[in-house]
Amino acid sequence: MDKTVGVLGGGQLGRMLAEAANRLNITLIILDKASAPAKQITAHNAHITGSFKDGPSIHELTKKSDVLTIEIEHVDADILREIEESGTPVHPSWSTIKTIQDKYEQKLHLRERGVAVADALPLSSDSEEELGSVGRQLGYPFMLKSRKDAYDGRGNFPVRSAEDIPAAIEALGKRGANSLYAEKWASFTMELAVMVVQTKDGTLAFPAVETVHENSICKLVYAPARGVSTSTFKAAEGLAKRAVSSFKGKGVYGVEMFLLPNGELLINEIAPRPHNSGHYTIEACPLSQYDAHLRAILDLPIPEDSLRIREPAIMLNILGGPKPDSHINIAKYALNNPRTSIHLYGKGDGSPGRKMGHLTVTAHSMSECETLIAPLIHEVDILSSQIPQSTKFTPTKPSPLVAVIMGSDSDFPTLKPCLDILTTFSIPFTVAITSAHRTPEYMSTFTSTAAQNGIRVIIAAAGGAAHLPGMAAAHTSLPVIGIPIRGSTLDGMDSLLSIVQMPRGVPVATVAINNSLNAGLLAARVLGVTDVRVRERVERYALESREEVRGKGEKLGDLGWEDYLKGMGK
Amino acid sequence: MDKTVGVLGGGQLGRMLAEAANRLNITLIILDKASAPAKQITAHNAHITGSFKDGPSIHELTKKSDVLTIEIEHVDADILREIEESGTPVHPSWSTIKTIQDKYEQKLHLRERGVAVADALPLSSDSEEELGSVGRQLGYPFMLKSRKDAYDGRGNFPVRSAEDIPAAIEALGKRGANSLYAEKWASFTMELAVMVVQTKDGTLAFPAVETVHENSICKLVYAPARGVSTSTFKAAEGLAKRAVSSFKGKGVYGVEMFLLPNGELLINEIAPRPHNSGHYTIEACPLSQYDAHLRAILDLPIPEDSLRIREPAIMLNILGGPKPDSHINIAKYALNNPRTSIHLYGKGDGSPGRKMGHLTVTAHSMSECETLIAPLIHEVDILSSQIPQSTKFTPTKPSPLVAVIMGSDSDFPTLKPCLDILTTFSIPFTVAITSAHRTPEYMSTFTSTAAQNGIRVIIAAAGGAAHLPGMAAAHTSLPVIGIPIRGSTLDGMDSLLSIVQMPRGVPVATVAINNSLNAGLLAARVLGVTDVRVRERVERYALESREEVRGKGEKLGDLGWEDYLKGMGK
Repeated sequence: MDKTVGVLGGGQLGRMLAEAANRLNITLIILDKASAPAKQITAHNAHITGSFKDGPSIHELTKKSDVLTIEIEHVDADILREIEESGTPVHPSWSTIKTIQDKYEQKLHLRERGVAVADALPLSSDSEEELGSVGRQLGYPFMLKSRKDAYDGRGNFPVRSAEDIPAAIEALGKRGANSLYAEKWASFTMELAVMVVQTKDGTLAFPAVETVHENSICKLVYAPARGVSTSTFKAAEGLAKRAVSSFKGKGVYGVEMFLLPNGELLINEIAPRPHNSGHYTIEACPLSQYDAHLRAILDLPIPEDSLRIREPAIMLNILGGPKPDSHINIAKYALNNPRTSIHLYGKGDGSPGRKMGHLTVTAHSMSECETLIAPLIHEVDILSSQIPQSTKFTPTKPSPLVAVIMGSDSDFPTLKPCLDILTTFSIPFTVAITSAHRTPEYMSTFTSTAAQNGIRVIIAAAGGAAHLPGMAAAHTSLPVIGIPIRGSTLDGMDSLLSIVQMPRGVPVATVAINNSLNAGLLAARVLGVTDVRVRERVERYALESREEVRGKGEKLGDLGWEDYLKGMGK
Repeated sequence: MDKTVGVLGGGQLGRMLAEAANRLNITLIILDKASAPAKQITAHNAHITGSFKDGPSIHELTKKSDVLTIEIEHVDADILREIEESGTPVHPSWSTIKTIQDKYEQKLHLRERGVAVADALPLSSDSEEELGSVGRQLGYPFMLKSRKDAYDGRGNFPVRSAEDIPAAIEALGKRGANSLYAEKWASFTMELAVMVVQTKDGTLAFPAVETVHENSICKLVYAPARGVSTSTFKAAEGLAKRAVSSFKGKGVYGVEMFLLPNGELLINEIAPRPHNSGHYTIEACPLSQYDAHLRAILDLPIPEDSLRIREPAIMLNILGGPKPDSHINIAKYALNNPRTSIHLYGKGDGSPGRKMGHLTVTAHSMSECETLIAPLIHEVDILSSQIPQSTKFTPTKPSPLVAVIMGSDSDFPTLKPCLDILTTFSIPFTVAITSAHRTPEYMSTFTSTAAQNGIRVIIAAAGGAAHLPGMAAAHTSLPVIGIPIRGSTLDGMDSLLSIVQMPRGVPVATVAINNSLNAGLLAARVLGVTDVRVRERVERYALESREEVRGKGEKLGDLGWEDYLKGMGK
């Protein structure tokens, strides 16, 4: 790995890029101020002290490097053009950086290539008249945005009504003519992000993740996105790849998008570099976005399978708080938190809203991640809202892994042992009443969206012409466990045969008539296939049952058979 | 995280410790030669150039540090004693290092505290007489070992018979009186290792892993150990914790042990520091052994759950080969390999047998890891054996995830659709004939060890008084799928009821009579709960079935019902 990579900028993205480079013994030369985070973990004398916007410094960096890349796009694209034209590869290309730097140009570029973006209008001035006219065209609310040098919420102003216009001008005006644009408000149901890797051979994508912003700064990333269908994942990844392949230059691109209520996706913004919403990849994927970026710009191979998520993850940013060490206190608090990896960026004292570090929680299920991260989000919220630490914290309820459904509430009492055993095993579950015959649409929606809602096993109970388990199995790829309920006639044989005799292609895991306990235990065995804690509980349960039966055997030995039978009242 | 840690030694262990320290912004000061691997990724001027055995350098390091630790135990323990006694904490304690440095003392120490170790005898000389007498006492073969400064195979000589004695003296003699000892040969079935973390509050353990050595150098680590029962895991972790808690000083200890054919465990060696067999933790666990070491010596919290394995992993060492860049070629080859993380240590040119880096493959199952790592092991073997690259490589067969069992081979034809669908879905499986009635012991052994052999789902087919699925379920905590086989009487109802009507506590997931296809599909749904690739195959299958039925519907529309029926020959 004998190439030297010059990097414009040495902030946290440069630092995490350096972590990846260190492991492959690739030399990074950083152009940034002397104490830059990336320089702290790359010990050599070739770094350059200066601004990544400064021409002579960039030229000096070029002399020492085989390839140039950036960790921030607010660089001088024209200088990069000269460098690229005189033969040193620059990734991404100067032209990409130039287009992306101007957010309105970025949108135009994408729209002209048929990529869905939110409607946007350029502004020639910051006059009240022009803003009023834009408001009438786009409708309220709309976003007033600075075309350049905007990030982490700086340079954005939401204009909720015509009355906000003076405040918007106050906040973003005075940036000169043609420096602003207006964007139609996207009433999204979720924000998604996809990290796309552009290589010499094409584009690859990490899975779509869900991003949550607060004050226009990324706060949380859920990987993979929660409650999103397979087709939306595919659409998001496809859209992101199409958008990125319209730009020149190798490396990672962070693509942020809106998921609209009708399922449509709109690109919001593209960053031509590794991105905050891709930090989760360090723990969650075999290759991180930083590994991928380095490999892409050096034409090293990237096996697609290495971009898959090992285990669900949630990333939480650590921002600077009211005191210079507020962020350190969050990190210290996080040391106590199970399954939490901590990254501090070596930036010294914090200031409010500055990105000082991040945390990543990984766990067997998203439900577990949510439970684990809850106290950390709470700490971060206390910090940002200045609520005193004594505020009582209520952990969120973990989202269910098992859905127990029944056709009629008359089956409910029979299900009690099932719900009891799931509770004993600490397996989160949800219970629903949905009939294949009386609520066919609800049944179909419930079961076909179960997997994307985090459900891993469906338990369905039904009696008589018992269709519910089989219909559920027809609507999902999850394992469905069927419990035949004994009705007033035929002793449950009607239900049993209706459930177990499914046609080839659609299996239902059938348990004994009325034996809901076994359905719960079977669900636990299924979850235990990969969750060692659940398996341990199943084993403990078997051991306890064995002890119970042994105990009875001993009692029989002690009492003799006649007294034992008497003791049973027989 | 405001403490400064002084580290004696800056090799690969120090470097990986530095990776962990960087993320928490903890300053490490390294005492080692100027170009030491750990110094390359910790950029500051406080490092000390010198030997980690040199008194004045160690004292200089102490002045700059709040805590001292080591990444190699071949240091001057007496100097550390002075330092510890004059108030600077040293982890582990000088006394621990002193005892562990001398492998014979280490064994005595453990044996005196009731910890199981292999029998060993000290040697006062390297005379043929004394070795002959030892051979008669311990029996052949035995291991002749250097008491000090032995690592990575250096300082060990296997004495297979009395005839080997002169060669053994040639290899290890001339080290002076009392420098050697002899160890009884352990005919182990497997070597295990457990990383134990000693904290201010007690000991914690990472899961037991399997280590494979070649020429006495660690080659491979399987995490967790393969084919080992829950009770052996617990015993290994317990033994390792007991051994470590007999030593003074915080931090990570690497405990290597032998698993004997009778299930007994013997401690082989303890390293008082992070260890090669713990590298896998970087990718496989939420906290790595390096994170844990730092936290332990700084009294920072370590949540026990953070030491669990996220997903199975295999670690492969990259040793120096015949050429200075042989190891780089292995790393380059590994860039192509999916799900493979590469660590190069920045040691420059390689020399044969020197540890230059390592690889870690992580995947959803150990079976998948084995398949993924196979070509890399092959490359490493080519390198170490000098076989020309053109040698044909046959990948190993992945170990099975599903066991399909039947009571009698008369059930075999009925199982064909099940085996076909598992093959189509690329799910590795094994088939066995075992009858609950005719081979009750084999059935019990097979099913009760299935989980530890990597099996995740058992499919059992049986007819008549069909006991096999229920008995299998009684012997395992894995999900068991039962297929009722139709016999010559009762149309399969006998089998169905024998399988489905299991008592409370022991569920069998029953499918329709003779419907082995559905059993295979159900196994796929169970594996698909957490393996997205399997789930995708299940979804694709459902889609294809849908298309097939739709196709028939269209044909019916085209032909009309009469011609359609005619086409069916009815």
